[in-house]
Amino acid sequence: MNTYLRRYSLAAATAIVAFGAVGQQSPRVTELEALAGRVRTLEDREDIRALILAYGTAHDHRDYRTFAALFAKEGEWVGGLGSAKGPEAIFELMDRTIGHDPKPNGSGTYHVMTNDQIKIDGNAASATTKWIYLTPGADAAPRMVYLGHYDDKFIRENGEWRFLRREAPADIAPPR
Amino acid sequence: MNTYLRRYSLAAATAIVAFGAVGQQSPRVTELEALAGRVRTLEDREDIRALILAYGTAHDHRDYRTFAALFAKEGEWVGGLGSAKGPEAIFELMDRTIGHDPKPNGSGTYHVMTNDQIKIDGNAASATTKWIYLTPGADAAPRMVYLGHYDDKFIRENGEWRFLRREAPADIAPPR
Amino acid sequence: MNTYLRRYSLAAATAIVAFGAVGQQSPRVTELEALAGRVRTLEDREDIRALILAYGTAHDHRDYRTFAALFAKEGEWVGGLGSAKGPEAIFELMDRTIGHDPKPNGSGTYHVMTNDQIKIDGNAASATTKWIYLTPGADAAPRMVYLGHYDDKFIRENGEWRFLRREAPADIAPPR
Repeated sequence: MNTYLRRYSLAAATAIVAFGAVGQQSPRVTELEALAGRVRTLEDREDIRALILAYGTAHDHRDYRTFAALFAKEGEWVGGLGSAKGPEAIFELMDRTIGHDPKPNGSGTYHVMTNDQIKIDGNAASATTKWIYLTPGADAAPRMVYLGHYDDKFIRENGEWRFLRREAPADIAPPR
Repeated sequence: MNTYLRRYSLAAATAIVAFGAVGQQSPRVTELEALAGRVRTLEDREDIRALILAYGTAHDHRDYRTFAALFAKEGEWVGGLGSAKGPEAIFELMDRTIGHDPKPNGSGTYHVMTNDQIKIDGNAASATTKWIYLTPGADAAPRMVYLGHYDDKFIRENGEWRFLRREAPADIAPPR
Repeated sequence: MNTYLRRYSLAAATAIVAFGAVGQQSPRVTELEALAGRVRTLEDREDIRALILAYGTAHDHRDYRTFAALFAKEGEWVGGLGSAKGPEAIFELMDRTIGHDPKPNGSGTYHVMTNDQIKIDGNAASATTKWIYLTPGADAAPRMVYLGHYDDKFIRENGEWRFLRREAPADIAPPR
C-alpha cells in the first residue's frame, strides 16, 4: 500500500513528460481503473458485512426464507443443527430444527455478529467472524447462551455476494 | 455493482476510439465524478459509524451536552425515558432522567454499539443497530442490564451527519 | 466533506473552459491524486481494524509470537499485567504472565474487540476501542470476566500499520 504513492508519483512524472504542461495534465484511464478496483474492494467488504448482518437479522426474525436466500446456489450451512446444501435444503433444515415463523419485530432471540475478518479475492472471499447468541434468562435479563465463530466462504453470484459455505462452530457452549 | 466493470470497459473502449492511442488516453471528468460519488458513500458510512459511537461515548461519559449536539435541529429521541425534539429538549430529558455529569474517564456504565446496518441516500440515511447496556453487578463483575436496537434516521446538516430521529426500543429487558 | 462537491464542480467548470468540449474533457492528475488520498484513508481504517482484530485472535490462540509482531519496533504495551516496550519484551511479558502456547483452534478464552473509533493522520493514527474478555463459567456457560477499553497509537512502519502504544485499562473488573 505504501508503494502506491511512490508508483503514482512515477506515473504522474511520466505524464508530465508526455503532456508537457503540469497544470493541464490528465491521468490515464488505467490509473482511474486501478483506483476504481481499490474502491470496489472497499465496497465488497461493506457488502459482505451487510450479508453477515442480514443473516443475523433473519435468525432473530425467524425468517428462514430470507435466511436461505443469502446462500449461493451451491451454498452450504454446517453447524450444531446439522448440515445442508443449497437454499432449499438450508431452509428445510432451519424450518425443521428451529421453525420458520417470521416475526418482523423480533422473536426474543438476539444474535450479535462481530469481529469480522474478511479477505477479498476478486469474486471470491473468506472470513472469520464471531457470533454471540442471547436470550432472556429465567429472570428476564439478557443471558448469553452460546458463543462461537463462523468460518465463511463467499462467492459473487449474479453480481451479489452470497455464502458459499458457512460453518458455525461453538466456542463456549454448555451442554444442553 | 457487477455492472460497474462492464460499464467501465465500455467507456474505456469509447475513449480509445475517441483518442486513438491506448497508452495515452485519459478518462472523462464524469468518470472521475462517478468514482468520487462511490468514495463519498463509503466515507458517509464511516462518518455515520463515528456518529453512532460518539453517542455511546457521550452516554458512558454522562456528557449530555455532547450527546444532544449529535442531533439535528429537528432531531428526535424516543425511548424508555420519554421523548424529546431538538438538542435543547433532548439535553433536558437526559439531564432530568439520568443527570448531566461529565466524567471524561467514564461513569462506570458501558454501552456497546454494534451490528450497524446503514443505508445512505444522498443527504439522508437510515440504520438499524444494536445496543447492549452493561454496568457492574452486585459482585462487581460485568452485568448485561438491557439490550435492544436503534431505529435511526440521519440527515446531513451543515455538512455533518446528525441524528434526525433515534428510537431505542429494548429487546431483552427485565422489569425494574 | 460537504465542500468537496462544491470544490469539484468548480474544478469541472474550469476544465470545461480549458478544454472547450464538455463531453471529452479529462480530469487533472491532481484531482485523481486527491481522490486516491481519500481512498487510502478508507483503506488505512480497514487495515487498522484488521490489526486490532489480529491482536484479539492472537490472544485467543495464545500465540504471543504473532501478538508481539503486531507492535512497532518501539511499540509499547501497558495494562494490568505490567508494561513492556518492543516486540521481544512484549513477548516475554505475555509469555511470563499468560504463557505462549499456540492453539490455532482456540484456547477457550474469547476476546471481543468492538466500537473502534479510529483517527488517521498520514502515517500515524490513534483509536479508542472496547474489549470484552469472556471465558467459560463454572456452569460452562459464557461468562464476562472483565471489560475495558484500549487507548491506542499506531504507526505505519515499513508500509504496515503497527501498534506504537496500546494501553488497556479495565472499566468493569471485579477484584480477583
